[in-house]
Order: sequence, then structure tokens, then C-alpha cells
Amino acid sequence: MATSLRTIKSLSPLLDRILVQRIRAETKTASGIFLPESSVEKLSEAKVLAVGPGGFDKDGKRLEVSVKPGDRVLIPQYGGSPVKVGEEEFTLFRDHELLAKINE
Amino acid sequence: MATSLRTIKSLSPLLDRILVQRIRAETKTASGIFLPESSVEKLSEAKVLAVGPGGFDKDGKRLEVSVKPGDRVLIPQYGGSPVKVGEEEFTLFRDHELLAKINE
Amino acid sequence: MATSLRTIKSLSPLLDRILVQRIRAETKTASGIFLPESSVEKLSEAKVLAVGPGGFDKDGKRLEVSVKPGDRVLIPQYGGSPVKVGEEEFTLFRDHELLAKINE
Amino acid sequence: MATSLRTIKSLSPLLDRILVQRIRAETKTASGIFLPESSVEKLSEAKVLAVGPGGFDKDGKRLEVSVKPGDRVLIPQYGGSPVKVGEEEFTLFRDHELLAKINE
Amino acid sequence: MATSLRTIKSLSPLLDRILVQRIRAETKTASGIFLPESSVEKLSEAKVLAVGPGGFDKDGKRLEVSVKPGDRVLIPQYGGSPVKVGEEEFTLFRDHELLAKINE
Amino acid sequence: MATSLRTIKSLSPLLDRILVQRIRAETKTASGIFLPESSVEKLSEAKVLAVGPGGFDKDGKRLEVSVKPGDRVLIPQYGGSPVKVGEEEFTLFRDHELLAKINE
Amino acid sequence: MATSLRTIKSLSPLLDRILVQRIRAETKTASGIFLPESSVEKLSEAKVLAVGPGGFDKDGKRLEVSVKPGDRVLIPQYGGSPVKVGEEEFTLFRDHELLAKINE
Repeated sequence: MATSLRTIKSLSPLLDRILVQRIRAETKTASGIFLPESSVEKLSEAKVLAVGPGGFDKDGKRLEVSVKPGDRVLIPQYGGSPVKVGEEEFTLFRDHELLAKINE
Repeated sequence: MATSLRTIKSLSPLLDRILVQRIRAETKTASGIFLPESSVEKLSEAKVLAVGPGGFDKDGKRLEVSVKPGDRVLIPQYGGSPVKVGEEEFTLFRDHELLAKINE
Repeated sequence: MATSLRTIKSLSPLLDRILVQRIRAETKTASGIFLPESSVEKLSEAKVLAVGPGGFDKDGKRLEVSVKPGDRVLIPQYGGSPVKVGEEEFTLFRDHELLAKINE
Repeated sequence: MATSLRTIKSLSPLLDRILVQRIRAETKTASGIFLPESSVEKLSEAKVLAVGPGGFDKDGKRLEVSVKPGDRVLIPQYGGSPVKVGEEEFTLFRDHELLAKINE
Repeated sequence: MATSLRTIKSLSPLLDRILVQRIRAETKTASGIFLPESSVEKLSEAKVLAVGPGGFDKDGKRLEVSVKPGDRVLIPQYGGSPVKVGEEEFTLFRDHELLAKINE
Repeated sequence: MATSLRTIKSLSPLLDRILVQRIRAETKTASGIFLPESSVEKLSEAKVLAVGPGGFDKDGKRLEVSVKPGDRVLIPQYGGSPVKVGEEEFTLFRDHELLAKINE
Repeated sequence: MATSLRTIKSLSPLLDRILVQRIRAETKTASGIFLPESSVEKLSEAKVLAVGPGGFDKDGKRLEVSVKPGDRVLIPQYGGSPVKVGEEEFTLFRDHELLAKINE
């Protein structure tokens, strides 16, 4: 999904949506040798950049989302809506699609 | 979906529907050269033109929609109902289908 | 759906159903030339002829429908139940299937 | 669905079910000529013979059905459960499947 | 579904399930001639043998079932769980699948 | 589903799950002759070995399950999660999947 | 799902998710002979490593999960989200997908 955005910071997710950026695998081995990017497995980790105000429960009250900007999270293998700003790629998930927080 | 409307301003979306118009990609490079439209990627950005009064929660109370006319929004790649007024194309989404607000 | 009705006015939609008649495209150009009907695109506009009393929310209370007889509405491309009275065709939609009101 | 019923009057629909009998198209033209039945289109009209006590809302309270015995109704093209008593055919619909009342 | 039951009377349906036995069509004509069973249409009628205590509404309260042992009912053409006791066949339906009571 | 369990008694079903063991058909005729197991139909009967504490209704309150350890039940033809302990096979059903109690 | 995690202990499951590690079958017979791993059936048992804070009921209140870290559980044959930390594999399930607790 191409956009004309100057910066991803301009995006405010709606409802229970969470904007994340996938973390890239190191392309350098522990001993300092660089690997071609294609030989490195894609990681299921992402950094939360922005969160929506939350969806509604059946009585019309907001349900707070589970993560906050800066959190590192485990994301599912499939799903999410891709967003492209310049050459960078981001993804929007619904809050309940995120699997776990990463505390490292 | 063809219409005989004179202007898109005549449309008042019902319930939680949001009327938007997709933003066109620049067909001019930064240095001022014009590109053929077919070589320009379609953007996932749209401008909100009108919003419905909101759908109902399980108790029959209105749930306010998340955006307002004038907002710029990120729209999903698929879905929405197309509307044509003259040669111009518009789309109606349900409020929860919109992905994010754009503050730029 | 054939009927033996003398007039469409005899129909009272049930629950949240809305009886509409599609608006025909002009088969005459602005300069007065008549076009064969087959060359004219079908319009997604309809006039509301009658509305049901509304469906029920989860507590068994009626939810008022969003339109009233005389309203012009934007209808979806697919769906609805066709009704034929003599040679004329009409359609029944559920209230939430209608996309927008037309104020023109 | 064959039955051994002596009369359709023995059937009391359960919950929100509505027992109807389809109205047959006239097989005689306005000028009195009889048409073979196969050349006559099937009508989407039916007479209500009996109605159930209504289904339950989420709190276990009965939701009254929308029609009563003697009403004429517009029925959907598909669906319903057929019942045969002798050579006559009847149909059971759920209340919300009926499209409109006919006041003629 | 084979069972080792000595008698169908040992079965107590759970929740909203209804145990019925299909009524067999007469294999004797009005004038007393016996017909081979294969030439007789299967009936959509059944006798209620036992009923469950009812399912639960959203608040965890029991919803009484619509029929009682001894009732004759109209059953749907498809669905239900077959049970075999010796050579006899029975069927378990959910209460809302039964179409009508037969008062004859 | 293989397990390393020493005994099935170590399993405590979660939520509304019910652990059962299918009852084997007699492989001996009434007159005492033994039949090869493959010629004997599989029975739809099972003995309840353990029950979960119950699932939750929409308000987060526990819904008691319908059976208790020791009950004999009629089980559906399909569904359930198989569990293997040594050479013995067991099945876990959700409470609402069980069809009837057997009082014999 | 590859990750760059140093340890699985860094994962905090979100909502009603449960992080487990499958228990490996013994590759040594009772008499002490080692078996090739490929000849050993995969077990449906897992150890709970971490649990989420619970999902929400319809009123927005947390529903406690059914298990706690250290519990041994019976897991379903299919489903769950795989996570890889180094060479080790883990799985995330939703609480209601777990079948039973193992008390051994």
C-alpha cells in the first residue's frame, strides 16, 4: 500500500489498530561477517510505533489496547495491513492479533 | 456504480458509513518532470468527504464514528463500495474498515 | 419474483426492510438526442417507496430504520430481493444495506 | 416432506415459524381464456395459515412475530421448509425471512 | 449410531435436545391392500419420546424447550443425530430445529 | 494424540471439556460365541471419566457442565479430540456436544 | 517464526494467550536402548511457560486464564502459533484451545 506520507509519524491508528515495524534480522554474524540479506530468515518481531484509542465493548465503552508505543511485540505470520512510506514498510494489526510482548 | 448526481456533496452516508475520495499520486517528479499516470502507484490515502451518524451498539445506542469530514485517512487495499459521479470516483467504507488517520 | 399485485402501494415491508425502485438513467442526451436504453449504464440510485417498522435490538426493542418514503438513496451493486408488479421492478433491501441518502 | 396429516389445520408452528400457502397464479386471462398451468409464472405471494409463539431475545423473552393468520405476505424466492398434506403443498418460514405484508 | 441400549427409555437428552421417533407411513391402502414398504414415501412426522432440560440464554438461565414427551411434531428433512437401539431408529434434534407441533 | 501419561486419571479437563471413554461392543453373542472385533459395530456410547469446571457465560460466570464422572452418555458420530494413554484411547468433547445421558 | 530473542523468558503473552513448550517423547526404551528420534511419536503434552492476563468478557472485564506457568497441559493436534528461539520451538495457544491439565 503506497502512500505519499513524508513520515510514518503522521499515522494515528484508528480504533484497536496497532502500527508496528518489523525488526530486521542481523545480517552480520557474531564474528563480524556480513551475510547477504536473502540468506537471513524474516523475524516475527516488531516495534510498536503507534496505537489506536481502542475498540468498543458491547455497551459502547472503549477497551484499552494491550501495548504502547516503544513496546517490542511478537507478530503473527499472516495478516495485518501493509503500509509503505518511501522505501520503508510498516504493518497495522488489530490489538488482539498481536501474540506477545517482548521484554528484552 | 454509476449515478446521476450533479455533485458528490449530495450524498449523506447512512449508519457507520464514511464517504472518501482516494488521493492521487503526484504525476510530477520532484525535479518537475511529468510522469504518465499509468507508471504511478495507486495510493492508499483518501480524504473524508462525509460521515454517517454512526451505527448502533447492542442496546440501540449510536456509536460515534472515528473520523470527520476533512480528515485524511489510510484505507484498506480491498473492500468499500465504489460510487461514480460524472467522471470522478469515490468510495464508501464502514467506519471500522478505515485503518488510520493521517496528520500531515 | 412475480406477484399478482395491482399496485406496489399494497406492500408494507416487514421488520427492517426497505422497498425501493431503482431510478432509470436518462436515455436522452443534454442536446435532446435519444439513446437506445441498452447503451445507458444502470444507476445505483433508488427512491424509497415504503419502510418497515424496524428490526429488534438484543433487548427486543425496535431499532428505527434510517430512511423514509420519498428519500432518494444510493443502493449496493449486489443483493436485495426483487419484486415484480406487472412490468415494473422493485427491490427490497434491509436498512443496513443502503449506502447513503441523496439530497438533490 | 410427506405427512399423514388429515388437514393442515393440525399444524402449530414452533418458535418464530410461520406456516404459509403459496397463492396460485390465475390460469385464466382477463378475457376468460384458460392457460396451461405450466405457462404461468409462480407467484411470490402466500397466505399466512398459522404462526408460532415467537422466538426468544438474548434475555429469554419472547419476540412477537410480525404477521398473523389471514395475512397475505411476500415470500423470498429461496428457503423455507416444504410440507405436503395430501396433494397440497405448504411452506414454513422463519418470521424474519418474510419480506412484506400485502394489503390488497 | 449403534448402541447397546436395552430400551430407548434409558436416554435422557441433554440441554435443548429432543429425542423423537419418526412415524412410519401406512403400508396398507384405505381399501386394505398392503403395499411394499419401499413404495411408501418417508413421513416428516415424529413422536417426541423425551426432552432435555433446555439450553442456556446469555445470562446462564435455562430456556424451556417447546415440546413435551407424547407430542407429535413436524421434523426437518435434513439434520438430527441418528440413534439405533436394536433394530429401531430414533433421532435427536435441537429444540429450534423442530418445525411445528401436530394436533391430530 | 500420543501422550506419556501413566494413567488417564492424571487428566483434568479444562473449561467445558468432558473426558470420556467409548464403550466397546460385546464381541460375544448371547449364546456365548466370540466374534472377531472387526465384525462388531462401533458403539456411540461412552463413560464419563472427568469433567471440566465449566465454560463462561457472557458475564464471565461459570456455566456448570451437564454430566458428572461415572455418567454414561451418547456421543456424536464425529468430532471430539482423541487422547491416547498407552494402548487405550479416550476422547475429549465439549459439554454441548454430548447428546444424551444413558440411565441403564 | 524466527526471532532474535536471547531467551524465551522474554516473552509475555498478550490477552488470553498461553506460551507452551511441547514435551519430547523419550527416545530411550525402558530397558535403556536409544531409539532414533524419527521413530518416536510426537506427544500432545506441553509445559506452560507463561500466560497472558486474560481476554475480556462482553462487559470489558478480564476473564482469568485456566492455567499457570509450570502446569502441564494436553494440547490440540492442530493450531497454535509457533515461535522459534535459537533452535528451540515453542507454541502460543489461546486459553480455550488447551484441552486438559495433566497432574502427574
